[in-house]
Amino acid sequence: MRFFYCLFILTTAYGQYRPIEHVRPLIGTQDAGHTYPGATLPFGAIQLSPDTDTIPFAVNGRYQPDVYRYCAGYQYNDSSIVGFSHTHFSGTGHSDLGDILIMPNTGPIQWNPGTSAEPQKGYRSKYSHQEIANPGYYGVYLDEPKVFAELTTTTRVGVHKYRFDAQEQTHLILDLTHGIYNYEGKNVWCFLRVENDTLITGYKQTNGWGRTRTVYFAIATSQPISTYHIKDIRPSSYKGFWRKFDTENNFAEGAGQGIKAALFFGAANTLELRVAISGVSIEGALLNLKTEAPISDFTAYQSLAQVQWEKAFSIVENAEFLSLEDAVNFYTSWYHTLIGSTIYMDVDGKYRGLDQRIHQADGFTNYTTFSLWDTYRAEHPFLNLFYPEQNASMIESMLQHYNQSVHHMLPIWSHYANENWCMIGYHAVSVLADAVIKNNPYLKHTKRYLDAAHSTANQRFYEGLGAYLDDGFVAEDVSGSSVSKTLEYAYDDWCIAQMAKKMNNDSLASYYLKRSNNFKNVYDAGSGFMRPRMSSGAFKDSFDPLSTHDQGFIEGNAWNYSFYAPHAPYELIKLMGGDQKFITHLDSLFTMDLPDAYFAQTEDIMREGIIGNYVHGNEPSHHIPYFYNFTSQPWKTQEKTRLILKDQYGETSTGMGGNDDCGQMSAWYIFSALGFYPFAPGATYYCLTSPLVKKATLQLDNGKTLQISAPENSSKNIYIQRVFFNTKRLTSPFIEHEQLLMGGSLVFEMGPRPNKNAFQNK
Amino acid sequence: MRFFYCLFILTTAYGQYRPIEHVRPLIGTQDAGHTYPGATLPFGAIQLSPDTDTIPFAVNGRYQPDVYRYCAGYQYNDSSIVGFSHTHFSGTGHSDLGDILIMPNTGPIQWNPGTSAEPQKGYRSKYSHQEIANPGYYGVYLDEPKVFAELTTTTRVGVHKYRFDAQEQTHLILDLTHGIYNYEGKNVWCFLRVENDTLITGYKQTNGWGRTRTVYFAIATSQPISTYHIKDIRPSSYKGFWRKFDTENNFAEGAGQGIKAALFFGAANTLELRVAISGVSIEGALLNLKTEAPISDFTAYQSLAQVQWEKAFSIVENAEFLSLEDAVNFYTSWYHTLIGSTIYMDVDGKYRGLDQRIHQADGFTNYTTFSLWDTYRAEHPFLNLFYPEQNASMIESMLQHYNQSVHHMLPIWSHYANENWCMIGYHAVSVLADAVIKNNPYLKHTKRYLDAAHSTANQRFYEGLGAYLDDGFVAEDVSGSSVSKTLEYAYDDWCIAQMAKKMNNDSLASYYLKRSNNFKNVYDAGSGFMRPRMSSGAFKDSFDPLSTHDQGFIEGNAWNYSFYAPHAPYELIKLMGGDQKFITHLDSLFTMDLPDAYFAQTEDIMREGIIGNYVHGNEPSHHIPYFYNFTSQPWKTQEKTRLILKDQYGETSTGMGGNDDCGQMSAWYIFSALGFYPFAPGATYYCLTSPLVKKATLQLDNGKTLQISAPENSSKNIYIQRVFFNTKRLTSPFIEHEQLLMGGSLVFEMGPRPNKNAFQNK
Repeated sequence: MRFFYCLFILTTAYGQYRPIEHVRPLIGTQDAGHTYPGATLPFGAIQLSPDTDTIPFAVNGRYQPDVYRYCAGYQYNDSSIVGFSHTHFSGTGHSDLGDILIMPNTGPIQWNPGTSAEPQKGYRSKYSHQEIANPGYYGVYLDEPKVFAELTTTTRVGVHKYRFDAQEQTHLILDLTHGIYNYEGKNVWCFLRVENDTLITGYKQTNGWGRTRTVYFAIATSQPISTYHIKDIRPSSYKGFWRKFDTENNFAEGAGQGIKAALFFGAANTLELRVAISGVSIEGALLNLKTEAPISDFTAYQSLAQVQWEKAFSIVENAEFLSLEDAVNFYTSWYHTLIGSTIYMDVDGKYRGLDQRIHQADGFTNYTTFSLWDTYRAEHPFLNLFYPEQNASMIESMLQHYNQSVHHMLPIWSHYANENWCMIGYHAVSVLADAVIKNNPYLKHTKRYLDAAHSTANQRFYEGLGAYLDDGFVAEDVSGSSVSKTLEYAYDDWCIAQMAKKMNNDSLASYYLKRSNNFKNVYDAGSGFMRPRMSSGAFKDSFDPLSTHDQGFIEGNAWNYSFYAPHAPYELIKLMGGDQKFITHLDSLFTMDLPDAYFAQTEDIMREGIIGNYVHGNEPSHHIPYFYNFTSQPWKTQEKTRLILKDQYGETSTGMGGNDDCGQMSAWYIFSALGFYPFAPGATYYCLTSPLVKKATLQLDNGKTLQISAPENSSKNIYIQRVFFNTKRLTSPFIEHEQLLMGGSLVFEMGPRPNKNAFQNK
Repeated sequence: MRFFYCLFILTTAYGQYRPIEHVRPLIGTQDAGHTYPGATLPFGAIQLSPDTDTIPFAVNGRYQPDVYRYCAGYQYNDSSIVGFSHTHFSGTGHSDLGDILIMPNTGPIQWNPGTSAEPQKGYRSKYSHQEIANPGYYGVYLDEPKVFAELTTTTRVGVHKYRFDAQEQTHLILDLTHGIYNYEGKNVWCFLRVENDTLITGYKQTNGWGRTRTVYFAIATSQPISTYHIKDIRPSSYKGFWRKFDTENNFAEGAGQGIKAALFFGAANTLELRVAISGVSIEGALLNLKTEAPISDFTAYQSLAQVQWEKAFSIVENAEFLSLEDAVNFYTSWYHTLIGSTIYMDVDGKYRGLDQRIHQADGFTNYTTFSLWDTYRAEHPFLNLFYPEQNASMIESMLQHYNQSVHHMLPIWSHYANENWCMIGYHAVSVLADAVIKNNPYLKHTKRYLDAAHSTANQRFYEGLGAYLDDGFVAEDVSGSSVSKTLEYAYDDWCIAQMAKKMNNDSLASYYLKRSNNFKNVYDAGSGFMRPRMSSGAFKDSFDPLSTHDQGFIEGNAWNYSFYAPHAPYELIKLMGGDQKFITHLDSLFTMDLPDAYFAQTEDIMREGIIGNYVHGNEPSHHIPYFYNFTSQPWKTQEKTRLILKDQYGETSTGMGGNDDCGQMSAWYIFSALGFYPFAPGATYYCLTSPLVKKATLQLDNGKTLQISAPENSSKNIYIQRVFFNTKRLTSPFIEHEQLLMGGSLVFEMGPRPNKNAFQNK
């Protein structure tokens, strides 16, 4: 039996298909997108996906740059699959996870994965993209063991189905040493028990990006295990009295740093597995298994997964696009916004906290994976608008993180009960403020948010924050990337001020409002750029506004970062010389040429992720195209966002010019495609732009319906002529969150040329 | 302020003191006793004791023989103390533990312990035995930091009090890398949090004798911590983004393989600590702390500890001895019988099981540390007689171990949620059978004991058991120490038979009774010794009955092990040629000379632990002196046991000729000193012998009182003339368990010469 599938099942016009049928999880799986193609549910705890290589993060302490391609475990242009592991980040620029790898096999046991150059020397298999990836489902034909492998999932249980062509004895490799961004010593400990002939339990503990991370699991098999072998590939120098026994063959328990197992199942040629995970305990994994996937029935779980995805997509109805490609990009972006943060809690509400203790979630769902430097911009505002209950639970999870933090801080970049301290700022405060300001009805402990934000924003040990508190800016000789830090702290401080104001805490509001002006402290009127200062107060001597290398910035150069004051657009414009001068400057960002030498310093993105010197593949610029709305030329926002939507997103595996970053790139897409964007989360307004859709009906959580339409929209009619909200013409290129929540119709009149008076009521 | 204490506080006649005032925890702390001098409670989870060296178990995979002296962390003749750690075995011959070392210091931080040769090069201190050790209390003056350190404990919380002479700034070293039988790589992971200025939490996870062992802790300080430093002495090659910060100075969280901390407390010169541990979680440690030691009050905990020990000793009253030394040895032995197995459960009944899952103890106390090859002989029978409730809880703990065992076995040598597989046999069945046969009223699940025993005794993977099942003996070429294994399996099988009979399971009773005859299969009538056989069935060619080196035996030679059929004494006598021949043979065991070359092979004991070729320092011979009771010359039992009591036990630090082995040596002492001994646990009778006491009143758990007296007893009057139980003369040198439980008087008439008709009713 052989199965052949093409990469994308869609070959006809999009109108015939439901939203989830437009989703192509393979988008972004090549080069810098760092998405994974495997099976998961909305915010699912399991991300069951193929890994195509095993490049270590470091060898003898030396970073291996090639590992970067494998942040999500999979690269589309690889020709072999190592196996299927259960946890993956979506679109990150650093990595971890890849837990509990399973690979079907036939013939003699191969304990090692082999290499991509010589896959036959290990348990990995060549494959030829006889592969199908849909929301909640992934199937692939593995050429060498001749197995059709299918994956689906419940929230906490990965479900595998293997159909072997061969009649010979089949087996599975279970490799607990496998992992993403692996290195010698990352595996701290593994524990494995063959509880009976259809149940395996254990855990795996790692020291990686998450410094102290443990994944517990329970694996149920549809066929009885006939014989099995457990191997410790990194045996301890001390075996104790375990050396008395043959602990490799049919010995029911293994423990050590390097545990792998081979499981034989007799002659059965179809095998199903259910793999439950838990961050709490083996008991938790068993409870998740029993509750979510009590019996072996792959097809049933596949259907249930589809139902869940249908439900998640039911918010958007009757959307019309200008092309199939737009539909695919839109729905795939929507898909990616729903798999960034994930549930980190057992079915009984128990979860592991940052303090490594077990907590009980009281009236909320605990989430993990907060890539906040990225996601505060559009991803959380997106969730706050369309999935407010989930966003409120994420905020509650962040508050609990704060409660559990011995550093008394909200999360920076946290995953799986760990703070990994990646990137800068304290942008959780933006997520909190945005939800508070926008009256998210599901918020639980708003009073505590302000305490948490205030505490977070005053930890002197953190990344130059002490100097910032003392001097109003981070000095470059105190803490690197000092300008980026100063600018982002200032924005975050403004967010706290908004929250404080809303809560009638005037003194904190005024304190943080004052701090939010600190962005001015790093503006160099001489060069016209934000520029690093030294402890002395003087600007740093050498300065190259195109460079991102040790110039006071991170993931962006002075050109891009100098536009970073989302909370004070008019003040920034004034600072930079007023409307006309600012527009000229902003125009040049998009038109200038960034020489290759500078591009090489630009982390995380492909050459495609850039327009002029505007870097869409990294996040600090995401609000910049909308800056024209604050000038006399808002039509340039419309022009730029339409350009970016077409230029920076594509329907193939290389369809992302930079890391999706847990949905941030995708959320930017959706907002921009719908015609509005949260320029400054924490503020109540959105910037309007030219929508990509012709129409879309959005079912809001409050029961209202928001109808977006742009009847004349086309690839030429990209300019807004007029906008009507519930028949009333809008007189500025902004719309309020409250307006959107009222529901009704948002009608864009479109045309081929800018209407310079589009928002003037005449 | 200086404190001077002599080693032993007792200088006057024993009669003036209560039992616990006779206890000298320092007995056995030099050479092979492997006891520890520190503070603990009866069966206490905390054993807070000084460690005097840090010799590793192995260096580059090579065993370091010197480590053996440090099984309990302390050697009396060492001159420096490394620090105080919270977990210790009592008297074992292999080791682990030594968790959470704390050492007071002054002056600059020293991160390493230094060496015994150069203590000043580390944080350890010289000391000069200005030291006091009582049940539940230990105090010592540390010469170098000039600190008087005192330790006491609740069941789960170690309490420290440090009084510094110096006015200079004092600090504590907290070394999570310290451990007993340590080696590079034993520390799997450490986690440490400074929760606030008086609370530290964390855990430590090791891979040692216990393969997967984690100790969680919470440390409360009486003075606020002013500054602190956390160091990772084995930093991972990957630090992630933690390298952004100074994580060594006042940074509240540390994690890694090699975590140590230095805690400063300002100028306070008295400091108290409460250190709670848990096998479950940090929450468990915090709960134990809050429940057992909620406030800082060293003196109160010291008094409570004393009360608990008084209560434990209240079983024995008005005892009279022939000398102070006898009293000291008797009560110290009694003390040691109560610290072998220890509570392994939080105050709320949660405990970690062998399956590494958290369980709730339902109606019992969960215990750990079962050195069953040793303790089935006299320690458990002792507990079963005098502490039946605790022994029943231990049995329930063993049953739960079985329930949690993926190998479906009762414990062999288990500690801290681990089976370490040390030594041979499956002697848990003896402990179960003994309690069942003797109608221990606290037993809970007697029906399940038989299932557990039956399962345990049929695991073919275990130590030649497959061959034993097939052939009736373990062949030496199949599994080493084959004779010892065969003999012990046969005895264990007899125990199962007794239990089955009691439960009216005739078929199992008869099956195991048949198996219990297997001891005959390794008897070589030609040599007159038990002798290893090969798979062929033939006896192994080369054979030296004095040697223990690869001769089919373990911790005993053929001479000693040939007497090992405690369940079939008369059959063994018959096998070995009948009464007279047997007596002659047995006599020679005690009188022959064991040449030094053979002694060198005799593990675990000092030259003193031996009488002729009778090795009291190892356990396989413990029943042998009582074998005369089954011959026509029972007075020789009286002669031998009196000799052993005086010869093999002493009141000094070198007072033990071999490892105490979790109380087995001590339990032998108590039984023998009281005049009776459980020759074959699982049988209802005890062998009578010449008591060492003149009198003793024993308060039995059933409310009855048993009065033992031997009015004419003296160092000369060592022979029993007649014995009366409740005025009725005994006609055999045996007494039934049921008789003892009736209470009343057991009167020994003593004389200077054997009464060869002592048990003949004329």
